[in-house]
Amino acid sequence: MKPYQRKVQYYETDMMGIAHHANYIRWMEEARIDFMEQLGYPYADMEKGGIYSPVRSLACDYRKPCTFNDELSITVSISAFTGARLMLRYEIKKGDELICEARSEHAFVDKVGRVIRLPRAVPALAQKIELLREHVDAAEAPEKKGEKE
Amino acid sequence: MKPYQRKVQYYETDMMGIAHHANYIRWMEEARIDFMEQLGYPYADMEKGGIYSPVRSLACDYRKPCTFNDELSITVSISAFTGARLMLRYEIKKGDELICEARSEHAFVDKVGRVIRLPRAVPALAQKIELLREHVDAAEAPEKKGEKE
Amino acid sequence: MKPYQRKVQYYETDMMGIAHHANYIRWMEEARIDFMEQLGYPYADMEKGGIYSPVRSLACDYRKPCTFNDELSITVSISAFTGARLMLRYEIKKGDELICEARSEHAFVDKVGRVIRLPRAVPALAQKIELLREHVDAAEAPEKKGEKE
Amino acid sequence: MKPYQRKVQYYETDMMGIAHHANYIRWMEEARIDFMEQLGYPYADMEKGGIYSPVRSLACDYRKPCTFNDELSITVSISAFTGARLMLRYEIKKGDELICEARSEHAFVDKVGRVIRLPRAVPALAQKIELLREHVDAAEAPEKKGEKE
Repeated sequence: MKPYQRKVQYYETDMMGIAHHANYIRWMEEARIDFMEQLGYPYADMEKGGIYSPVRSLACDYRKPCTFNDELSITVSISAFTGARLMLRYEIKKGDELICEARSEHAFVDKVGRVIRLPRAVPALAQKIELLREHVDAAEAPEKKGEKE
Repeated sequence: MKPYQRKVQYYETDMMGIAHHANYIRWMEEARIDFMEQLGYPYADMEKGGIYSPVRSLACDYRKPCTFNDELSITVSISAFTGARLMLRYEIKKGDELICEARSEHAFVDKVGRVIRLPRAVPALAQKIELLREHVDAAEAPEKKGEKE
Repeated sequence: MKPYQRKVQYYETDMMGIAHHANYIRWMEEARIDFMEQLGYPYADMEKGGIYSPVRSLACDYRKPCTFNDELSITVSISAFTGARLMLRYEIKKGDELICEARSEHAFVDKVGRVIRLPRAVPALAQKIELLREHVDAAEAPEKKGEKE
Repeated sequence: MKPYQRKVQYYETDMMGIAHHANYIRWMEEARIDFMEQLGYPYADMEKGGIYSPVRSLACDYRKPCTFNDELSITVSISAFTGARLMLRYEIKKGDELICEARSEHAFVDKVGRVIRLPRAVPALAQKIELLREHVDAAEAPEKKGEKE
């Protein structure tokens, strides 16, 4: 999966001269939507198919500021998947510098808010997610020792 | 009608140290929604009743900058009404100082975008708007001489 | 301290028909700025005095959606204070219903980003924060048993 | 000059299911910044050089709605230039369909708000703008007959 590329816009800065912290949440969404598209399941199609994916929680660690015109690169990875919930991780970088680490947790629901289990509703997508998650586990296991998620 | 009061938020400033110009468009919406509520026709109720009011055009003259924590006061008035189109005027002030003059033009449409004529759909609201518009004409006519709208 | 009152704006909704999750981060800022003003230390004055308070991290648990015109009430409390770092907690409610629980962590720095210790820079404010924090500890201690922060 | 390409983001939609009209103002800024970069005078560099370019006025005609994931293409052109003021025109298209026509007017000022005449401050840029404007006049003159700008 290719990282998502994003330039900081002028209107995203604040009077401190840096990108306002609320915008990172929007960039995470952009990167997530790009990630789903790379997976072959564009979010727009999923909503048309009656599957919504609201954010249940999120967390952001702001490491370094960034500002207008900075080129950001956002890597999304799957940290957990239960069939009804998906946990994503984000690394926002400016060149080699880590700007922000973040997480988001997503439910899958239908139009009226009833929980959808992805493995039943879209088995092929659930399988892809499962695969990517395992890959993450394998690749990241050593560094993650002692981290409680 | 009472002017709409609004404080400039920190996240609305940009690296020039002033409120970013795109936010004024949002403040106009806030003031317009407050105006409709004062009229007795809250916008939320109108949408529930199947009447939508998309923006067809807008124009903004930025006279003075404003910044974080400034207390703004926004006056909305009706400059024209055709039954299917509504033209509003806005004066955004900080104390006595005129910050911005603006206009917006609105259609009335149903859920699928078909034009709704307000005098037929909500006669009482159309009448109120008509009344307020006439009032504007009477009060502002002298100053408006020579202005091309 | 009075909770901060805030109506959800139309432009804060998204095509899911609810307030977009990124806006909550902005409401937290609004509530925080109101909190500082109630404390007698308006954020605008602090920045003029050369003290900036960037967000170091934040976390949001979205419990229930909210939408256009909902009246929200946001309670801010101090969960920790080290002199150089301040941790705040937020409860966003719609009537009695808890919409969102959130936290943010703030540093204090000068114009060029050097850490400021608040007890030295603004002792009276540090004392007020200390007092409010202790009050929180006393009031919330029983419920907090077993919570790891 | 190449048109600026831009996808509509999920967070830019509202509960009407379309991109909220305030976002177009931001897209215009993005396109304008891209235009300046293509001209060889990145806006970030200009601000570092002490030249700011605040928006004095803008106008938008919304022709068709657009929504999440739509690919937009924004063409910027110079409609007038006086040395101290620059008038830009924007066409926002989705495929061949015209979504929005807009204009913005910009001043050039220094850090403290004093007017800068571009032909004196950055003669090479002023010349480029002049050239592009003349080109516009020549190309568009016939269609523009009778239009008062």
